[in-house]
Amino acid sequence: MTVSDVGEFGLIRMIAADLPTSDAVIMGTGDDAAVLTIRGAAVWSTDTMVEEVHFRRNWSSAKDVGRKIVGVSVADLEAMGARPVGILIALAVPVDLDVQWVLDFAAGVRQECARCGALLLGGDTTRSRDITITASVLGELGTGRSVTRSGAKAGDLIAVCGRLGYAAAGLAVLSRGFRSPRAVVEAQRYPEPPYGQGAIAAANGATAMIDVSDGLLADLAHIAESSAVVINVSTSSVPVGEPLRAVAGALGGSNPLRYVLTGGEDHALAAAFPNSLVVPPGWTIIGEVIAGEQPGVLVDGKPWIGKDGWTHF
Amino acid sequence: MTVSDVGEFGLIRMIAADLPTSDAVIMGTGDDAAVLTIRGAAVWSTDTMVEEVHFRRNWSSAKDVGRKIVGVSVADLEAMGARPVGILIALAVPVDLDVQWVLDFAAGVRQECARCGALLLGGDTTRSRDITITASVLGELGTGRSVTRSGAKAGDLIAVCGRLGYAAAGLAVLSRGFRSPRAVVEAQRYPEPPYGQGAIAAANGATAMIDVSDGLLADLAHIAESSAVVINVSTSSVPVGEPLRAVAGALGGSNPLRYVLTGGEDHALAAAFPNSLVVPPGWTIIGEVIAGEQPGVLVDGKPWIGKDGWTHF
Repeated sequence: MTVSDVGEFGLIRMIAADLPTSDAVIMGTGDDAAVLTIRGAAVWSTDTMVEEVHFRRNWSSAKDVGRKIVGVSVADLEAMGARPVGILIALAVPVDLDVQWVLDFAAGVRQECARCGALLLGGDTTRSRDITITASVLGELGTGRSVTRSGAKAGDLIAVCGRLGYAAAGLAVLSRGFRSPRAVVEAQRYPEPPYGQGAIAAANGATAMIDVSDGLLADLAHIAESSAVVINVSTSSVPVGEPLRAVAGALGGSNPLRYVLTGGEDHALAAAFPNSLVVPPGWTIIGEVIAGEQPGVLVDGKPWIGKDGWTHF
Repeated sequence: MTVSDVGEFGLIRMIAADLPTSDAVIMGTGDDAAVLTIRGAAVWSTDTMVEEVHFRRNWSSAKDVGRKIVGVSVADLEAMGARPVGILIALAVPVDLDVQWVLDFAAGVRQECARCGALLLGGDTTRSRDITITASVLGELGTGRSVTRSGAKAGDLIAVCGRLGYAAAGLAVLSRGFRSPRAVVEAQRYPEPPYGQGAIAAANGATAMIDVSDGLLADLAHIAESSAVVINVSTSSVPVGEPLRAVAGALGGSNPLRYVLTGGEDHALAAAFPNSLVVPPGWTIIGEVIAGEQPGVLVDGKPWIGKDGWTHF
């Protein structure tokens, strides 16, 4: 059965059946727009994933894709110190797509929403040649404050929370036709952002924060530029997961550190903190903020010259 | 110069240069997410437009497309009684697209944002085969209340505000290779929703409301079903614009009323009001809500059987 067989409204009914709700939701799906209560300032972001650009149907299940769109989107709210409240999904799919793909995708969305505490509140469906998914996510700061990219100061420490390099290592093995190690292959299929840690970092005084979508060094460069500082990363402190060593070894002995420093799509959090006492448990200090004429990123004190992560065009 | 030449960050810089802001905006573009203050409940919706499905580059300028995505999206907020605050635009475009198209598109977005009072606060850019645009719009109710589709009661009057049938008539002439009458051709390129009238209708006691995206009868059927009522439309009261008569005459004498009753994409507002005294100026009463066993729409007292507007699959 294709999406064309069930039609737009049939498809929406199937996706929206028995969605969880909360006291914050005044109107969920089924009307022109969602209506909800936001505590404190609203934090709001959008992300698009396009088939063959951000995922491949022969590498990722529909459920994986559903988990991924929620994870990459909510990570942006985490990076501001917010807690997610709701998500809208705009889904453009080919008319001959099997309805089961959409249902599995929706199951993945629901599963990841349950993990991060967001509610699916609506969306849009239309036809297109390639599967194109745009999520809009809305979070709240409550009584907390937002953390931008621009507040890092000389003397701050840089710390990270969450997996780094796994998605890139997963891409490397999938590109060569392998399906293991499982940890890195699954990391390529969907991220596991450290939900809740953004608000914790904000409450503990983080001065700047970003989620690592383009690569650790590339994203630290965004903080360095926005804050007009230099960030020095100490590679001896950077966590290199055991599966990354296995992949690097299997693929000809390349340095696994490369995945950690330049690999994107893991959506870990990187933040600056004024001192080591306020770095929350679960975060690893990997560097420091220093003064400098030219904002940028150093690796072990030397200018970092290399491919700076993921470019979309 | 193509979007590939300027790159993702170059493109974002060009789109986001000198964006207007307001006191409600704590963080606009340039960080992981937008941060803003919402007064009262938040009203939130998303809409996607795909090239060749929702617009054609040889029929619509990039600026028209920019105006259209804002109009169709904000109309959903109007239909809840909300005022728009912000918009995020997720833009997926071919790598060989001329940068000028994107800049003209952004100019259209800005122009329509200025018309409706929304602020462009961010978005996402990525590559795709077809131009695919998803807007996410956020509005606020302030001290007002939201109006759903489900509150219409027997005895209520049905009224409309805004153009009806123009976009469908425009599609009819464009499909036959004509470019006039200009009013209907431009209506096909971008809607002109009656901005501000949704909140006015809500303040005046509207019991149910919807924006006419799929066609007047089809959208009134959504109100009828959600409210479990019957809506009777009196065709003698339905406004038929002069350009619609001209188009119907030129295209072989079809009834111009057909465009008004079944044509979508104009994003006028249709609402139920408890009595004629509270129908705001600028609204036209076209029918009434009556009790009935089977929810649905009557036209001049008879069951309406016909194509029920736009189906996306």
